[in-house]
Amino acid sequence: MAEATQKQPNPTASRPVRCIVKLGGAAITNKGELESIGVENLRSACAQLRQAMSHSGATEKVAGMDWSRRPGDPTDPVVDAEGLSEMEGLGLDTNFVVVHGAGSFGHFQASRSGVHKGGLQSTLVKAGFVATRISVTSLNQEIVRALAREGIPSVGMSPFACGWSTKQRNLESANASQIIQSLHVGFVPVLHGDAVLDELLDCTILSGDVIIRHLAQLLNPKYVVFLTDVHGVYDRPPSDPNAVLLREIEVDDTGSWSIVKPALKGSNKGVEISVAAHDTTGGMETKILEAAAIARLGVDVYITKVGTEHSLRALQGDTSSEDWLGTVIRSSK
Amino acid sequence: MAEATQKQPNPTASRPVRCIVKLGGAAITNKGELESIGVENLRSACAQLRQAMSHSGATEKVAGMDWSRRPGDPTDPVVDAEGLSEMEGLGLDTNFVVVHGAGSFGHFQASRSGVHKGGLQSTLVKAGFVATRISVTSLNQEIVRALAREGIPSVGMSPFACGWSTKQRNLESANASQIIQSLHVGFVPVLHGDAVLDELLDCTILSGDVIIRHLAQLLNPKYVVFLTDVHGVYDRPPSDPNAVLLREIEVDDTGSWSIVKPALKGSNKGVEISVAAHDTTGGMETKILEAAAIARLGVDVYITKVGTEHSLRALQGDTSSEDWLGTVIRSSK
Repeated sequence: MAEATQKQPNPTASRPVRCIVKLGGAAITNKGELESIGVENLRSACAQLRQAMSHSGATEKVAGMDWSRRPGDPTDPVVDAEGLSEMEGLGLDTNFVVVHGAGSFGHFQASRSGVHKGGLQSTLVKAGFVATRISVTSLNQEIVRALAREGIPSVGMSPFACGWSTKQRNLESANASQIIQSLHVGFVPVLHGDAVLDELLDCTILSGDVIIRHLAQLLNPKYVVFLTDVHGVYDRPPSDPNAVLLREIEVDDTGSWSIVKPALKGSNKGVEISVAAHDTTGGMETKILEAAAIARLGVDVYITKVGTEHSLRALQGDTSSEDWLGTVIRSSK
Repeated sequence: MAEATQKQPNPTASRPVRCIVKLGGAAITNKGELESIGVENLRSACAQLRQAMSHSGATEKVAGMDWSRRPGDPTDPVVDAEGLSEMEGLGLDTNFVVVHGAGSFGHFQASRSGVHKGGLQSTLVKAGFVATRISVTSLNQEIVRALAREGIPSVGMSPFACGWSTKQRNLESANASQIIQSLHVGFVPVLHGDAVLDELLDCTILSGDVIIRHLAQLLNPKYVVFLTDVHGVYDRPPSDPNAVLLREIEVDDTGSWSIVKPALKGSNKGVEISVAAHDTTGGMETKILEAAAIARLGVDVYITKVGTEHSLRALQGDTSSEDWLGTVIRSSK
């Protein structure tokens, strides 16, 4: 890991990455229904991403980049080739990376087969690996298309196909040179949690959160945004009426964290922190740990609810005002 | 290129690749209709591939590996997890690589925008690059699913995502280590013609035929099969009633080729060789040149019509009998 990190070129010299965005599985899919996209949330997230990328903030002409047929669409897509060739650039700061979770895609296939446990000599695991990748890459395709319809030049990149692999579930090989090349020429890479090969277990699941941490380390973005289906991190399950939204968490050098805002009564040691009720990989503990690991790098992490004014402000990197609703996780230094 | 070839591990030491299969765009899509799959041809190609992979030749239990919803399917997929976990392996020699063309996918998007000419500073080209990749990866997804339904453990691998790139349209970087790893653990990599980055032109189209030649060089398969929509290579357009199917072509060390069977009257210099009328990249000349380049490596190339008894025999590597219909291209040595 550390070696892989060092070997790769540093893209920040030429064009610093502004933001890595996690589209949480719970935020963009309908958790109760197999392979069902949360169409409105996904559309909103893509439109807000475009707004955050926009130089002027004004609504420019959208250069639609999904020229494929839609299911049930009787006519071929219309492409304004002349109009596009006359546009002087997109007017967008495209220096973003998108990573998404699986939600109701992939989880069913992975859990039925136990892909995360490994063991490819088992026919069930081998079949489940194939089935899981089919499901998560379907979702990736839909997200790339939704971004492209908003005029965001997005390119899907599957971690498995990129050659990313793990060793005992820890990221072992994760060359990002193609991601960096793509950013350099103005594309927005779209990665996802994936089934990958594991040096010891044969195979496992690599979560989107682990991918984000690795990319944050490599690309040193200005900030990282997690879009989820609740307003942020709570002191107990958000369904609990007494749940308190934690507004600011600080992480020190050792990885220990403390709640800065709000001031909670008593010790925070016993706080049952909760981000999203429905996580397909790792759950809330992993998510907090990954977010804390990113904050330790000196990169602010904003966790907030998809499809709200707060998510737009997070994507714009502006969470300083008092009325912003979400959780900021940052380094105490 | 040569350097990249040398650097990569030689997989033939442990498990020789049996066959690289090209599913031609014209063979598996409906050329007249935008983004329309030739469902019956694709299904037949996948079933024949399974038969060719089968150790016993008999029909074993098919371990279906597409556990995703089908459009219009009201019910969730049924997965026989218990049955699968009891299976002792797949009973298949999965040491195959599949590469497919674009056909009615990608061609529209690429030609509307001129992606093959490069120039990413143009908004039209940038949008076309994104649109082309969306279209060809949609087709890749459908082919992976069709293979998975036949119990073939297929994994989609996009050349762009794999970091493959060109320089002035010649393959420049094409690391195959993930393909080799995947073969090693029993997966069937499924690649495709793709929009890629180009060191001099910014971007271009990398055709499936060029991918095949590179993989043949790296993996040294026993044979390569091109499945297309006509019986093989003809001496003139196959639509011409006087067209003669060329049964055997020999390629010498210099790359010159001569027709061994049938014995044609006069010189073959003027022969207007034709493979498939509808090629999205390169056309017939490129195809013959790529096939000849593979044959020069000492790897036999079989070109034949999809969905026939001849395609099954080609996939099984058995084209020796007189009644096999197709074109064999081999080295004269």
